[in-house]
Amino acid sequence: MTDIARIRAAAERLEGHARLTPLLSSPLLDRIAGRRVLVKAECLQWTGSFKYRGARAALSALPADLRARGVLAYSSGNHGQGVALAASQFGVPSVVLMPADAPAVKIANTRAYGAEVILYDRATQDRDALGAALAGARGLTRIRPCDDAEVIAGQGTIGLEIAAQARQAGVLAATVLVPCGGGGMTSGIALALAAEAPALRVCPVEPEGFDDTARSLAAGRVLRNARAAGSLCDAIVTPQPGALTFPILQALSGPGLVVSEDQALQAMALAFAHLRIVLEPGGAVALAAALFAPDLPETVVAVASGGNVDPGVFRLALDLFATGGDPA
Amino acid sequence: MTDIARIRAAAERLEGHARLTPLLSSPLLDRIAGRRVLVKAECLQWTGSFKYRGARAALSALPADLRARGVLAYSSGNHGQGVALAASQFGVPSVVLMPADAPAVKIANTRAYGAEVILYDRATQDRDALGAALAGARGLTRIRPCDDAEVIAGQGTIGLEIAAQARQAGVLAATVLVPCGGGGMTSGIALALAAEAPALRVCPVEPEGFDDTARSLAAGRVLRNARAAGSLCDAIVTPQPGALTFPILQALSGPGLVVSEDQALQAMALAFAHLRIVLEPGGAVALAAALFAPDLPETVVAVASGGNVDPGVFRLALDLFATGGDPA
Repeated sequence: MTDIARIRAAAERLEGHARLTPLLSSPLLDRIAGRRVLVKAECLQWTGSFKYRGARAALSALPADLRARGVLAYSSGNHGQGVALAASQFGVPSVVLMPADAPAVKIANTRAYGAEVILYDRATQDRDALGAALAGARGLTRIRPCDDAEVIAGQGTIGLEIAAQARQAGVLAATVLVPCGGGGMTSGIALALAAEAPALRVCPVEPEGFDDTARSLAAGRVLRNARAAGSLCDAIVTPQPGALTFPILQALSGPGLVVSEDQALQAMALAFAHLRIVLEPGGAVALAAALFAPDLPETVVAVASGGNVDPGVFRLALDLFATGGDPA
Repeated sequence: MTDIARIRAAAERLEGHARLTPLLSSPLLDRIAGRRVLVKAECLQWTGSFKYRGARAALSALPADLRARGVLAYSSGNHGQGVALAASQFGVPSVVLMPADAPAVKIANTRAYGAEVILYDRATQDRDALGAALAGARGLTRIRPCDDAEVIAGQGTIGLEIAAQARQAGVLAATVLVPCGGGGMTSGIALALAAEAPALRVCPVEPEGFDDTARSLAAGRVLRNARAAGSLCDAIVTPQPGALTFPILQALSGPGLVVSEDQALQAMALAFAHLRIVLEPGGAVALAAALFAPDLPETVVAVASGGNVDPGVFRLALDLFATGGDPA
């Protein structure tokens, strides 16, 4: 089980490895949002997403002999890159199973960080059977993306940083918006804030059509999404909340928010113009909620969780929503 | 005159106002460069460029009664935004004279930060006469972009931060590449490093056709550029080195480096892909040199000085140089 002690222990192991990411803001962005928006820029984390934290936390918690045999991850790209970099830092092999339709930039970079990438077809191949066979044959330890106590603890270190940075910015109470797939980051941050800054309350944010966490929280039981793929927000498309993460969210999280793909793209364009950071659609949903959702408090913190985006998708965001300003 | 005492005094006045920007890096970017590249991300500074530091330093050094009457700046955009934000923070008026062909996003944002923007035609209007008339009529104090002891001191605070951050990263010696227009930032950083980390040596970087500083350093006297405009690197196009800045560079700087516009655009695309930051062409020239210049040492620090770029120019960089990776 993950608790604040495990998160603090993960923070100690990540010291000198994970980057303390800045809490950014812009007076012009605040004007657009109509509220104060603080952006935790995890796109500036190693490998371009928060996933490195959980991967490094999990690998550093493994017994050395087990770790030496290598690790296995299933990933649409960000978790895989985190595992690949952490494994290469420990000098151990990593294998990442990725759907063949994952963004090309994520596949290329997972390889560049040193992983053996194995592509599979979502429609015709059984990922779990593939993974189990590989793990058995090679003695690999699987690093789950969300439902793992050490991974949740690693992502929870973001919450420790937000608590300290918000205090330093004079923020006493706020809603903390977190992009939510399986809920590893959201539940980790929720645990950290409950201990360190209880007036900062987490709300998960999901894309339309993939709002399993919002519906599950409302229903009080785990519900699944109708579709398994088909969103630009590939980083946070998961079938259902996790077995470890959902009880934490039930205990500590506010209700889930839902944004459209267009709102995520618009948030990417505004982050480009006013924060000068690069976000991927799934990494921009919390910022989209911060900008466009009604009924939020005066101050919100939005986690900008990742920036691994194919150039074509980024161009789409600029084409649809970026303006050069009006010089007239 | 600017010296290390004036830079330290500026750092004290900027405390709690200027943002301590991160020193970013990426193993994949290092591989492309063939050396270790540390990127000082001043694009994440307030108003999207380092210019806020110098503007705030200068305004905070003015006698209160003079400051209250308001300030005047000439700017292609970044200095103007810095002056506009600093003035609005002090609650005093600002007037910014901008060429009508400045990037639209810079004109719009300078207005949004609260300045009165007056556009002039570079070809037919005399900026200095316009400015002198305005300053006289309204009692405005002109804040120069480079040739001002307090502005140089403000930009020099970047050097104090680089010295501390490089030490923390275990970097004992390096070349520090700085985008150079009038030389305010380059000379300020050179002064700070000479005092705090003398094994870190500054080299100015300029775009082809606007290499007045490189040629002036080589000749031992101030030389002018043939053209006054016409570069995508608008932020660092100046006619010649400054009267205050050039002697500092002569004493403390290494030789100037020159990069092409295409190299600046390629650096923007690589910063997008591997650092997830948004750079403008003029803000990317030092990173371009870090990536593509021959004969640099094993470790370089590149100042990424600004990210105020029109979406069309950013799209051009992605179209020419961004790849989605090769999934095959």
